[in-house]
Amino acid sequence: MTGIIDPVSPGLPVGSDTGHLAILGYDPYKYYPGRGPFEALGAGIMLRPGDVAFRCNLATLSGETVIDRRAGRIGSEEAGKLVESLAEVAEIDGVEVILRHTVEHRCVLVLRGEVSDKVSDVDPHREGGRVEWPRPLDDSGVSRRTAETLRNLLLRYREILEKHPINLKRKAEGKPVANMALPRGAGKMPSLPSLTERYGVKAAVIAGGALYKGVCGSAGMEVVEAEGATGTLNTNLDSKFSKAFQTLKRLDMVFLHIKGTDTAAHDKDPVTKASFLEKIDSSFARHFEPPGDEFIVCVTGDHTTSSLTGEHRGDPVPVLIYGHGVRRDGVQRFNEVDAAGGAIGRIRGLDLMNILMDLANRTEKFGE
Amino acid sequence: MTGIIDPVSPGLPVGSDTGHLAILGYDPYKYYPGRGPFEALGAGIMLRPGDVAFRCNLATLSGETVIDRRAGRIGSEEAGKLVESLAEVAEIDGVEVILRHTVEHRCVLVLRGEVSDKVSDVDPHREGGRVEWPRPLDDSGVSRRTAETLRNLLLRYREILEKHPINLKRKAEGKPVANMALPRGAGKMPSLPSLTERYGVKAAVIAGGALYKGVCGSAGMEVVEAEGATGTLNTNLDSKFSKAFQTLKRLDMVFLHIKGTDTAAHDKDPVTKASFLEKIDSSFARHFEPPGDEFIVCVTGDHTTSSLTGEHRGDPVPVLIYGHGVRRDGVQRFNEVDAAGGAIGRIRGLDLMNILMDLANRTEKFGE
Repeated sequence: MTGIIDPVSPGLPVGSDTGHLAILGYDPYKYYPGRGPFEALGAGIMLRPGDVAFRCNLATLSGETVIDRRAGRIGSEEAGKLVESLAEVAEIDGVEVILRHTVEHRCVLVLRGEVSDKVSDVDPHREGGRVEWPRPLDDSGVSRRTAETLRNLLLRYREILEKHPINLKRKAEGKPVANMALPRGAGKMPSLPSLTERYGVKAAVIAGGALYKGVCGSAGMEVVEAEGATGTLNTNLDSKFSKAFQTLKRLDMVFLHIKGTDTAAHDKDPVTKASFLEKIDSSFARHFEPPGDEFIVCVTGDHTTSSLTGEHRGDPVPVLIYGHGVRRDGVQRFNEVDAAGGAIGRIRGLDLMNILMDLANRTEKFGE
Repeated sequence: MTGIIDPVSPGLPVGSDTGHLAILGYDPYKYYPGRGPFEALGAGIMLRPGDVAFRCNLATLSGETVIDRRAGRIGSEEAGKLVESLAEVAEIDGVEVILRHTVEHRCVLVLRGEVSDKVSDVDPHREGGRVEWPRPLDDSGVSRRTAETLRNLLLRYREILEKHPINLKRKAEGKPVANMALPRGAGKMPSLPSLTERYGVKAAVIAGGALYKGVCGSAGMEVVEAEGATGTLNTNLDSKFSKAFQTLKRLDMVFLHIKGTDTAAHDKDPVTKASFLEKIDSSFARHFEPPGDEFIVCVTGDHTTSSLTGEHRGDPVPVLIYGHGVRRDGVQRFNEVDAAGGAIGRIRGLDLMNILMDLANRTEKFGE
């Protein structure tokens, strides 16, 4: 059966973090702490209570103007080395600093000590804008000091980056240099009730991107590694699907995340998106191995990304649910338009887990 | 026009009690007191403030193991006589006891006096489980004493049942004996604002089962008896429909409840369910007598029961609304899949009465 889902609510574009929280059953208005903490978890940083985590981009600045928020989508190898150099700054103004590279231009920054998460994004979220030096978001002394400390740290980072051999080489090659780190999404870790507590299922996540592992890990899901899962268009889909069906032999539920479609849409490249969807279809078909008669498959997304604007959009995403005891509608093609006429109708992200767990006979009746 | 309804919320399986509250416009999270009180009302017991009511099954125990939660679906005649014998216990430990038979294996128990509704279900809700002797659900002395009293009462009941001639006869015939009463769903009566207060309508209910009469009666609806309405598959549909259209000559609204489809699905018998639906169709057609030009007919359910599992399920139910000024969609067949493509879309149980009252021009505008 098919339908459409508003990840949070109709017309609201959501991030991958809030979108994932919602489709996993966690109200993001209650549980969303900003992107930083999930990203940190996914990067393998064990967050302690009180730690403040930021998502960071390596970016290209000219003076104080952000020319490229992703430093020409710098590759993981070069970015990794740059971040390694920055990570040598282990302390500033008495605050402990942890910086870790994840994928491509992305890294995670954690401040540990007497720090606040009430500091503004440095990333201006658009190219051509001026870098926005951190400001405290409340009146407390600790927020003011955290903003100052962060600024000092970023100035120190810039110093290191400007003279780094990799950047000198990129400059010589005419490539955008990665001469700034742009933090955003400051937050402390919330505690999510686990899927096991909520539904009595043992679940795992298979994903390339750090964020998805972070969200799911904090929901008590086992993070299963699949070889070649990169979180980009060159990911090894066969490895992911194969690992997923293998994992279903010992656990109740696997959440498999595929990022490439989103990446292609961010790049305004619907042709690549379509051919990647075809790759997903055929890889799924090759590896599909039902874990017994009574199983449920659900295919959906955490948000729409428009190939027109290259940005997330508040349009609903299509959803398909297949399996034992699931209604069968007449929809013949799985896309956002046909699915809207299916037996599910239009639901919200927060409804999805309840529906899936009900179909899997995992929910308790309300009343008699 | 057609659509689908989540009685309470997507994916949440509900009981007949919470489901009916919701489709009649009462939020069960606010008004649901457990099944007992509604069942008692429906059985004609005038509940007083402070009374604690339980739904009870006559069941078959071997030692302390529940072999059959419904004593082989014992017939109303035999069960009625057994309950009559038990009802002679009018008092225990200084607490007044009222026990009344309703349909088949079902009866209602009311404790009157200094009693608490914070006592656990004795019914283990599955066959093969041990009977769960009542436990207090809070730390109060009255809950502890109520649990003890209930246990003493059940032991007394068992004594009477084991040596009852009907059970001796059933035993001789190789039938499961009804040697225990299993109470569940302890609760005190909530006060529901009436449909007349809410919408200005005078309404009636026609149903076989005690529960439905109870819910509706507590919503201020007149309980109209239709001859041969049994609340089972052998009910007299003609009598119910005829009485419904007759009642509409003097009242504004009739809620007609038909139970047989649910019974068949609980028995995992979709063929009987389908043929019963056909009987409903033809009986409705035979008796359809519009009460004037401006009337609204609504057909829906209070929950889905899966013929696969025999249990309630969180899937939405189909809804059809027909009448003067109602939109007309292109849906040709009334079922849960086709209806999902109708003009109503997917709504919640709490929306239904508002929609019906609006179509009947009974609602007030919000704003000017």
